[in-house]
Amino acid sequence: MKVEIITIGDELLIGQTIDTNSAWMGRELSNLGFALNRRTAVADAAEDIKSAIGEAFGRVDLVILTGGLGPTKDDITKKTLCELYGCGLRRDEHVLAHLSRLFEKRGRQLLEINKIQADLPELCETLTNEVGTAPGMWFDQNGKVLVSMPGVPNEMMHIMTERVFPRLKNRFSTGTILHRTLLTINIAESLLSNHLESFESALPDGFTLAYLPALNTVKLRLTSRSEGAEPDAQMDKLFHTLCELCREWMFAPEDVVPARYMARMFLENNLRFTLAESCTGGYIANQLLLEPGVSAICDGAQITYSNAVKMRELGVPESIFSTVGAVSEECARYMADGIRKKMGADVAISTTGIAGPGGATPEKPVGLIYIGVSTAQQTVVKKYKLFGTREQFMQRACNCAMQLTMQVLKGEAAMISDSI
Amino acid sequence: MKVEIITIGDELLIGQTIDTNSAWMGRELSNLGFALNRRTAVADAAEDIKSAIGEAFGRVDLVILTGGLGPTKDDITKKTLCELYGCGLRRDEHVLAHLSRLFEKRGRQLLEINKIQADLPELCETLTNEVGTAPGMWFDQNGKVLVSMPGVPNEMMHIMTERVFPRLKNRFSTGTILHRTLLTINIAESLLSNHLESFESALPDGFTLAYLPALNTVKLRLTSRSEGAEPDAQMDKLFHTLCELCREWMFAPEDVVPARYMARMFLENNLRFTLAESCTGGYIANQLLLEPGVSAICDGAQITYSNAVKMRELGVPESIFSTVGAVSEECARYMADGIRKKMGADVAISTTGIAGPGGATPEKPVGLIYIGVSTAQQTVVKKYKLFGTREQFMQRACNCAMQLTMQVLKGEAAMISDSI
Repeated sequence: MKVEIITIGDELLIGQTIDTNSAWMGRELSNLGFALNRRTAVADAAEDIKSAIGEAFGRVDLVILTGGLGPTKDDITKKTLCELYGCGLRRDEHVLAHLSRLFEKRGRQLLEINKIQADLPELCETLTNEVGTAPGMWFDQNGKVLVSMPGVPNEMMHIMTERVFPRLKNRFSTGTILHRTLLTINIAESLLSNHLESFESALPDGFTLAYLPALNTVKLRLTSRSEGAEPDAQMDKLFHTLCELCREWMFAPEDVVPARYMARMFLENNLRFTLAESCTGGYIANQLLLEPGVSAICDGAQITYSNAVKMRELGVPESIFSTVGAVSEECARYMADGIRKKMGADVAISTTGIAGPGGATPEKPVGLIYIGVSTAQQTVVKKYKLFGTREQFMQRACNCAMQLTMQVLKGEAAMISDSI
Repeated sequence: MKVEIITIGDELLIGQTIDTNSAWMGRELSNLGFALNRRTAVADAAEDIKSAIGEAFGRVDLVILTGGLGPTKDDITKKTLCELYGCGLRRDEHVLAHLSRLFEKRGRQLLEINKIQADLPELCETLTNEVGTAPGMWFDQNGKVLVSMPGVPNEMMHIMTERVFPRLKNRFSTGTILHRTLLTINIAESLLSNHLESFESALPDGFTLAYLPALNTVKLRLTSRSEGAEPDAQMDKLFHTLCELCREWMFAPEDVVPARYMARMFLENNLRFTLAESCTGGYIANQLLLEPGVSAICDGAQITYSNAVKMRELGVPESIFSTVGAVSEECARYMADGIRKKMGADVAISTTGIAGPGGATPEKPVGLIYIGVSTAQQTVVKKYKLFGTREQFMQRACNCAMQLTMQVLKGEAAMISDSI
């Protein structure tokens, strides 16, 4: 069963908004057994919207639109759908009542421009939006289903989850698509591909392996497509083999964000953690602290840029700066031990390096970083040389720190390679 | 002059990768005077790639592809382009020499699978990729130009900037598209639209105004399209009027990320800054510290979750916790003053609130936050009630903190409304 997504909005084409909706929809639709055939972004222009919908219906029976449902003049999706389906607008009293409640709750006056959100094409079924002002629409005409939703991510997700998915399951019968993904850190895609060559060649019919590199991670996605019974057992077996083959570089046998996965592991094991970050400027702490509930196992963390703050707050000895310098294995070790003891934590992570673009010396180039992990049992420091912009440096450093922390916690610190 | 973008990759459709490339390309092409007509994402499937290219060339004369140029088996763009243009592959010796140097520098062996990156369709011009392994391709046949590039963001950006833009300027003559954008914080799109109704209705021909809401910001983008002379003067005048009309909510008369803009303002004015974050978990610090060079004006910052750490590190009196509690105006004030004095900074920002999803009480719901800004002259604390997930809460709080800091620095703290 194939589906296409059409996103509407000048801001998408002109690049003022990054389309995160499509990725979410693609993932969820894929999990439901729908194969996303194509995704098209068009401007807020009636002819472009109509031709994109017409072309999509030439290829598939299900088309999902997002965007162009705001109350302002540049949003024309609703008007265009009326033209396409040859119908007028009706005012939906349920939507109007919802808008009144919502505006009252937010302490805002319901303006005429806001009431327009309750006007919907006569031929559509309303998909109530409990978290925002623009409802979704469900058209089912001549065997073709069109769903239209606002482009605001949490509103789209709400309407999809609560209204669209249940209707899709009733309306269409899908084949079975299974995905299993594992995540590796600090191994190049081409090396991984060479390593997995015979596994890949021997995959049974209907199975495919994809490599998804991003920064210093590679996700390996094993996919099976079948019309009939679910090939669960075979998938499990193949995925298990794949995990074994990648054991050395695998961070998790799941499609995860490394820091979020680590934070959940800290929570599950009730491990109190803290950080002292220099060159990563709080990036790693924030990634860990995005996980709900972590404040119960993290009393605090510090960003320590200057030498003075490293000395005063973490107890790094002054002699470090006059000998090996702040960007050194020794400094990372003092930082990790210092913050762990100060915060009374079980695990502490430290970083010191050159994030760039400035600050490099011939001996200490941009991208150099020492990462420390301190526990009551041991303190491990590793040196890495990372590529990319300042932000990418922080992101890669975070992945390295998660890999190193995981290895320390699993007692695998001995197998850590010295750099990537 | 119209252009279309086609992105290739199962990972885009299935949602394992968010397409950030298209936004960047759209913005840059738009600035060069190209109007992006449509953007299409297709799978790593030869027929899908070919039909998308054929359809795009039915609408426009310039098509830009990204993705599917990796060394692994699932990447088939190059093979497909050979089929489309009816040509074979040639080995590009310059590319091969570049690959050898690159792999030597990274201390890795050049495998056969890597050498394949030097094989390019005979009919294309090579677009050298100095920062990665897959070169770009430029086809110019029958008056239609096709550009193909890798999907790795920094490699694509490098090839576009260094190779594609200069060629496009030579090859095509474009009309003039001008954009000017201002950014507002903490004003609803519909209120803004009502406020600007007469301005919008009176816009001259060729000018349009778009509203781009994201979290608690709305960008207002004024666009002019003309075939002939550049309407700079008229644009300047209209944009100036728009800024005046939005003065109360405008954060900056530019398309900026608030925290990055603030960091540049700190740098330009040599203002030393620091932060004590509770509920925002280092998010605001990291957003500010993403700006290159800031370590020169920030000695450090702290994440202080527990009451004990707030007392020990920032000097918040114990009585605060037994009376008004940690989530209070008083606590935010002590935090901001405490960290400013400790770090010897000119400006300090503090946050304390309920990021959620847990931790709420009837009096202190999820989304409640107090933000403090402390300078030698004054300390201002404001209360906000924010919507959204844990991550959105941090992002919205960051925008509010930037707005408040800007107002304090501009001496406009008196006009700050109490909540949004």
